[in-house]
Parts: sequence; structure tokens; C-alpha cells
Amino acid sequence: MQIAIVLFDRFTALDAVGPYEVLSRIPDAETVFAAERTGPVRNDTGSLALTADRTLADVPSPDVVLVPGGPGQQAQMDNGALLDWLRAADATSTWTTSVCSGSLLLAAAGLLAGRRATSHWLALDLLKRFGAEPTGERVVTDGKYVTAAGVSSGIDMGLTLVGRIAGDEHAQAVQLLTEYDPQPPYDAGSPQKAPAHLVEEFHTRNRFNLT
Amino acid sequence: MQIAIVLFDRFTALDAVGPYEVLSRIPDAETVFAAERTGPVRNDTGSLALTADRTLADVPSPDVVLVPGGPGQQAQMDNGALLDWLRAADATSTWTTSVCSGSLLLAAAGLLAGRRATSHWLALDLLKRFGAEPTGERVVTDGKYVTAAGVSSGIDMGLTLVGRIAGDEHAQAVQLLTEYDPQPPYDAGSPQKAPAHLVEEFHTRNRFNLT
Repeated sequence: MQIAIVLFDRFTALDAVGPYEVLSRIPDAETVFAAERTGPVRNDTGSLALTADRTLADVPSPDVVLVPGGPGQQAQMDNGALLDWLRAADATSTWTTSVCSGSLLLAAAGLLAGRRATSHWLALDLLKRFGAEPTGERVVTDGKYVTAAGVSSGIDMGLTLVGRIAGDEHAQAVQLLTEYDPQPPYDAGSPQKAPAHLVEEFHTRNRFNLT
Repeated sequence: MQIAIVLFDRFTALDAVGPYEVLSRIPDAETVFAAERTGPVRNDTGSLALTADRTLADVPSPDVVLVPGGPGQQAQMDNGALLDWLRAADATSTWTTSVCSGSLLLAAAGLLAGRRATSHWLALDLLKRFGAEPTGERVVTDGKYVTAAGVSSGIDMGLTLVGRIAGDEHAQAVQLLTEYDPQPPYDAGSPQKAPAHLVEEFHTRNRFNLT
């Protein structure tokens, strides 16, 4: 089983590394970071670089495709080579997945039309414009398409997939090994829970605004 | 403010990237990945490489020191250059922190003697041998020393630190932006919650066993 995690300039690091940490612990799975070119790929803040060990062309038919999000996603929406790769990889994948605004790339490739899906909470309206049906769930499964909400939700998605692929007991073992028993010191992790003025502020400077 | 995240061969990726994702969003903070040599550093499974942009010598006095864990930690326990750097950096740091078995490196450097601290649940006994006082909490603060439990707990630690450094409201904004509203699909994230036979299995092949 091959798991390909797509990288592009200005991706969000945790979108990729959260699910990576759990998915890479599926027995006999090969997990590869792939981008248009091999070598270091910088994240959204520029202070982190993950190595792409393969080009997208090197991994034409992964079993699991995972697309992270991040501010760099916007520049990829018209990247024909990437969208073509996504469509081709999806044709033979067992699971096609995304975290955060990565779902907008799946949507731009035409893969989410008419499907239930999610994205970063600020990007849900835009996702709808691409014909997907946004839901309020943190991890949305529609057939083989599994999309996660913002950034950290990729861990929940990854663990869900580990369960589907390797069984509940293996997923629990991975959860125990990674001590994933979250205890956030605040309770502001969704627009429903965060102080209203913070939600408002983010909406005002939302890079996904439909203008 | 400078935040230095230490990398070494066979570190665990999420130990470093979880807290990175939130700490790097502190206003006016410079976050740097540092290792003995610059360049790509491979993680525990070998399928991920993060770039060390600076050598440890390049960052002698960061405000925040963060040490991840992972299987590679064991080989660093006798690395005099690293332990010397930790002691010197700690002499001027505002916060000295670790995730997972990274606390064993702080302990080996003599920084946790007599202090309340934590580590991966499988490493708590070994931490005690170094004179620290392990607690069952997920994030332990003792003065300027903040240690987190296994792997994913670094996110909770990071967010706690964002609150201490940049204020509660900024921490809530970061939590909202990263949509950190965890909903694990299983409830097996600690030895108290996981099926007993899984806990037993991990204990049997525990690499931290005191033999």
C-alpha cells in the first residue's frame, strides 16, 4: 500500500504531518511526500521545509492520496499539471483525501461535485461554489472521499483512515502510541465555540472571501 | 523572540511540528529548526525529512528551547555537544520545553533534577531515574520548564505556551485558526483509557525498559 502526501509551496505543515504521523504507522504501508519537483518545500510561514522525496510523476497510482491545505493552495487552483495528476491518481486510488483547504484542490479537479465534503471553516462557502455539499462535521466520508476540516483535524481523519484500512485495534494502538488524548487548554477550536469577536475578525480578513 | 526546535536523526515528526504549528504563530517570533548540521533530518520511520535551517551553534541563546522525542533520542543521551548546547541555551532561555521522550534529553543534561515533569507514558520510569518527578498530567509546568507527554501532546503544550507568551486571546485565535477542536474517533489515547492488552503489549516491547 502506497500513501502519497502532496506538497506545494506555502502548504500548512500540520495539515500534512498530523495525518502522516498516524497513517505512516499502517503496517506495510509506504508513505511518500511528493511534489512537482523533489527537494525541500517551504510551508506557509517559510520557517519550515519538508522534503519531497518523489515527484508526482514518480507516484502515478498511490492507494491513498492526501492533499493538505494552506495559503499556497490558492496558487495551485489553476495548476493544470497538479489537477491532472489528482484526477489520474484518483482514478485508481482506494482513498482520496484532504485536510483544510486541500479539499478546494480536489474540488477544482472536479472530484467533489455532488459529494458531501468539508474544509477549513472559512472555506466552506467556496467549497460549495465548486459543487460540493459542505457539512459541519470534522471528518466527512463520502464513498472513498474523506475530507477533514481545518489544520489539526487531519489527525482525526488520519486515525479514522487507519481504522478503516488496518482495523480498529491497530488504530487504537496508534492512538495510544501517539498519546492522542487531547486536552486543549482553551475551548475555542471552532467558530461555534470561539469568542464571537475572534470569529468576526477572521471573517473580515478571510482569504477565501467570494468577491 | 526566538524559538529553537532541536532536530536529531530519528526524531518523531509530530513531536516537533505539532507545537511548531501553534508557536510559530506568536507575533514577532522567529521559529528556527536547528540541528548539529544544517540540511534535511530524517524522522523515526525514515519517510519524512525536515530541514534544519541552522546549526545549534547558530542559535546559542533562544528565548524558547523545544526538544522533541522519538527513537533517535536514545542515541543522543551521550551526545556531549547536544547536552552542552542544551545547558548553555537553558542558562538564558525564558522557557525550556520538551515533547515526549525529549524530556529525557533535558533530564540527561541535568535540567530536570527535582522538578515535576512528564514524558511519553512508557518513559516515565526512566525519567524518574534521572531525578525528575513524573506526574500524570499531559502538560507539566515547573517554573520555566514545560514538558509534554507523548507525541500529540505537544500541540496542547504549544497552545499553553502561546497563551503564556502572547496572551489567552491570541492563543484562542490560534486554536480557532488551526481548528483545534479534537474529536478522536477512538478513546484509547492514554494507558488508562486504552484496552489493557494493548497497554500490556507496549510495555513488553518498551524501548525505555530499565534493564
